[in-house]
Amino acid sequence: MKQVRLGVIGIGAQGGTYAGFIAEGKVKNMVLGAICDTDPEKKAMCAEKYPDVPFYDNYIDMLESGNVDAVVTTVPHYLHPEMGIEALKRDIHALLEKPAGVYTKQVKEINEFAATKPELTFAIFFNQRTNPLYQKVKEIVDNGEIGPIRRTNWMITNWWRPQAYYNQSDWRATWSGEGGGVLVNQAPHQIDLLQWICGMPKKVYSNVKYGFQRDIVVEDEVTTILDYGNGATGVFITCTHDVIGTDRFEILGDKGKIVVDDSKKITVKRLKKSENEMNAEMSWADAMKIFMGADLGEIYEEEVIEFQSVWGQQHISVLENFAANILDGTPLIAPGSDGIHGVGLANAIHLSSWLGKEVELPVDEELYFAELNKKIEAEKKETVTQ
Amino acid sequence: MKQVRLGVIGIGAQGGTYAGFIAEGKVKNMVLGAICDTDPEKKAMCAEKYPDVPFYDNYIDMLESGNVDAVVTTVPHYLHPEMGIEALKRDIHALLEKPAGVYTKQVKEINEFAATKPELTFAIFFNQRTNPLYQKVKEIVDNGEIGPIRRTNWMITNWWRPQAYYNQSDWRATWSGEGGGVLVNQAPHQIDLLQWICGMPKKVYSNVKYGFQRDIVVEDEVTTILDYGNGATGVFITCTHDVIGTDRFEILGDKGKIVVDDSKKITVKRLKKSENEMNAEMSWADAMKIFMGADLGEIYEEEVIEFQSVWGQQHISVLENFAANILDGTPLIAPGSDGIHGVGLANAIHLSSWLGKEVELPVDEELYFAELNKKIEAEKKETVTQ
Repeated sequence: MKQVRLGVIGIGAQGGTYAGFIAEGKVKNMVLGAICDTDPEKKAMCAEKYPDVPFYDNYIDMLESGNVDAVVTTVPHYLHPEMGIEALKRDIHALLEKPAGVYTKQVKEINEFAATKPELTFAIFFNQRTNPLYQKVKEIVDNGEIGPIRRTNWMITNWWRPQAYYNQSDWRATWSGEGGGVLVNQAPHQIDLLQWICGMPKKVYSNVKYGFQRDIVVEDEVTTILDYGNGATGVFITCTHDVIGTDRFEILGDKGKIVVDDSKKITVKRLKKSENEMNAEMSWADAMKIFMGADLGEIYEEEVIEFQSVWGQQHISVLENFAANILDGTPLIAPGSDGIHGVGLANAIHLSSWLGKEVELPVDEELYFAELNKKIEAEKKETVTQ
Repeated sequence: MKQVRLGVIGIGAQGGTYAGFIAEGKVKNMVLGAICDTDPEKKAMCAEKYPDVPFYDNYIDMLESGNVDAVVTTVPHYLHPEMGIEALKRDIHALLEKPAGVYTKQVKEINEFAATKPELTFAIFFNQRTNPLYQKVKEIVDNGEIGPIRRTNWMITNWWRPQAYYNQSDWRATWSGEGGGVLVNQAPHQIDLLQWICGMPKKVYSNVKYGFQRDIVVEDEVTTILDYGNGATGVFITCTHDVIGTDRFEILGDKGKIVVDDSKKITVKRLKKSENEMNAEMSWADAMKIFMGADLGEIYEEEVIEFQSVWGQQHISVLENFAANILDGTPLIAPGSDGIHGVGLANAIHLSSWLGKEVELPVDEELYFAELNKKIEAEKKETVTQ
C-alpha cells in the first residue's frame, strides 16, 4: 500500500472538512476511498462535489466494498465504538472521531476488540494533541522540568454556544442524541489534554448545572475538583454561556509552574531550587523578605513561548499521522485506546453530580450506564408528554 | 471626645505595627491610650519605646483603667470574641483583629452581645476592604455593571510560608493554638473580600490537604467549590506552598467579566448587549463567526485599571475609620458583625473536607464546634505520645 484510501462515514461538518482536505491533496499519503451517509441530500451533494468517489448509504457495504483501507467515523458520538468495531472486524483501520463514545462500557468494548487486532491501526481524532503548544507543555512536564505535579487548574469557558446552536436539530444537547452537553461535545479536547499531560485523577467531585443558561436538558456549566490520590489536586471548569470566554491552564509542580493563556502563550517559571529545598533550607527572616514582596525573579527563571494557531492544520496532521502509522508504523499521536480516559473522566464528572458525592476512577461503568439510561428514559417521557 | 485613646491588647507583630503608626501620629484622631501584654519582655520593650503609655499585663485591668476608649485585639484568634465582649461590657469600643474568631459559635456570641450595645463601635480589621482596587471591584458589581453573577473564581496561592515560619512557636498551625492553617491565618482577607463583593454561597464542597507540603496538622492546601444556590458557582483555591504564587480573581456576570490580577490590575469587559440578549437574538451563522474567532472587541468594551499598593496605608485607614465612627458616626468599612461570614465560610470548608460531602451555609455551628474539638483532642493525644 502506498496511499491509504480513506472511507468517510458521515459527511457532515467534520466529515466534509476532512474529505475536502483529502480531495485537495492536503493530506500526505491519503486519498478519498469512499463516502458514506444515510442522508439522500448528502448523496446528491457528493455526486456533484466528488463525482469519482464511490458513495454508500450503508457503512457496512462501504467496509466490504474493497474501496477503503481505513475509515473515519464522523457520526454521532454514540455510534463511534460500534462502527469502529465493524471496521476492525473487516480488517479496516479505524480512526474514531472524538469522543471515543458516550460511556466507558461501550468504549471498553472497542478497546478490547482492537487489542485482538494489533496489526490494525486504531486511532482517535484528538487533533489538539498535534498542537505544538500542548506538545511543548507535555514535554516540559514529562521532562520533569517543573517536578512532580501539585496542582492543575484549567478554566476553559470559551466554548460559547447560543440557543440557536442547540436548536439546529433535535438530537443536539439531549441524553439520547449526544449523551451530554459541553463535556461530550465541546470539551473532550481539553479533558484529553489534561489527562494526557497531567495524568488521570483518582477521584472527582463535580458541581454541574444542567440547562443553567440554555434551554437544554444536558450540562452547560461544569465545575470539578480532581484528586490525583497523591496529595495533588486539580480544578476543571468549562461552560457554553461565557461569550468572553477564559482559557487559562495552570500546572504547579515542585520545581516550577506553567501557565498557558488562550492556548497561545506558555509562561514557564522554573525554580532555581525546588520548592521542597527552599522550604527546608530557608530561614524565617529570608522567607519574610520573599513574602513581603522581594524580587521573585531571583528564585526562578521565566520563559515565555508564543504560538500561532493555523486552523485546519491540526486535523491534517492527525490524518497524516494515521496514514503514516498504517504505512510505516510511525507512532500514533493518539492511539484509539487512549479515548477511554477522556470518556471516563467526563462520565465521572456527570456521575458525581448525579450522586452528589465524590466518585472514584476508573468510573463504575455499569452504574454510569444505568444512570445515563435513566436520563434517557426521563427525557423520552418528557418529550412524549410535551 | 476629640481623640480616641486606643488600648492595644497584645503587642506582637501586628499590635506593634499599629502602636507604631499611632505613636508616630499617622492615625488621625487616635492616640495610644495603653498597651497590654502578658509577656514581661514586651513590658520592658514598651517601657523603653513608649515610656509615657501605661502598660498592663492583664487586659481587664486595662479596660477598667479609664485610660482607653477603645481596644484592638491583636491576640491569638481564639481570644478575639471574648476580649471583644469584655470590652463592650465596659462600654469600650472594640476593633477585632481578623479572623473574628475560630468558630461561628463564639463569633455569634459577640455579635449578639454587640447588638445589645448599638451605641458602641464594634468593627473588624479587614484592611483589604480599604484597598481601592477591591472597593472598585465591589462598586462595579454593586452597580450591576456586569449583571447578576454567574461564576466566581479566586486562586490566591501567594501565601507562601516555609517550615521555618511554622516552627517559630508551638501554637502555630495547630488546632488548639490557631484552629486551622491557611484558612484561619492567611486567607481570611480574601475569604472576606469574596463574600463582601460576591455574596455568601449557600453550599460548599472542599478538598483540603492537611500537612500536604508542610509538617503541620492543619491545612496548607485548599480547593473549594461554592454554590450560590441560584445556579451560580464559584471556586476558591489557596495554599502556603506555592512560592511562585498566583493571585487571580475572576467574576463572570450576565453583562460582563472582571479579572483581577495580582491584586494590582482590574480588567473589566462590559458587554454591549447582555449575554442573555445575545443568546436569544443571535443566529447560528452569526454565532459561528464569533466562535470561529471573530473580533470579540465588537461585543464588549474593555477597561483596564491599574493600582499601586502602599504598604501600611490600609491598616491606617482601618484605624482612622474606626476612630471616625466613634467620633462622628462615619459608616464603618467593616462592621464587626461582618466577621462571622468569613469565619462561617472557612468553617464550612473545613467541615466539608472532614465529612467528605457538600455542606450548607450557614454552617451547623454545634457540629463544627464538636468536630473542631475532636481535632484538638486528637492533637493533644498525639503530643502526649510523642
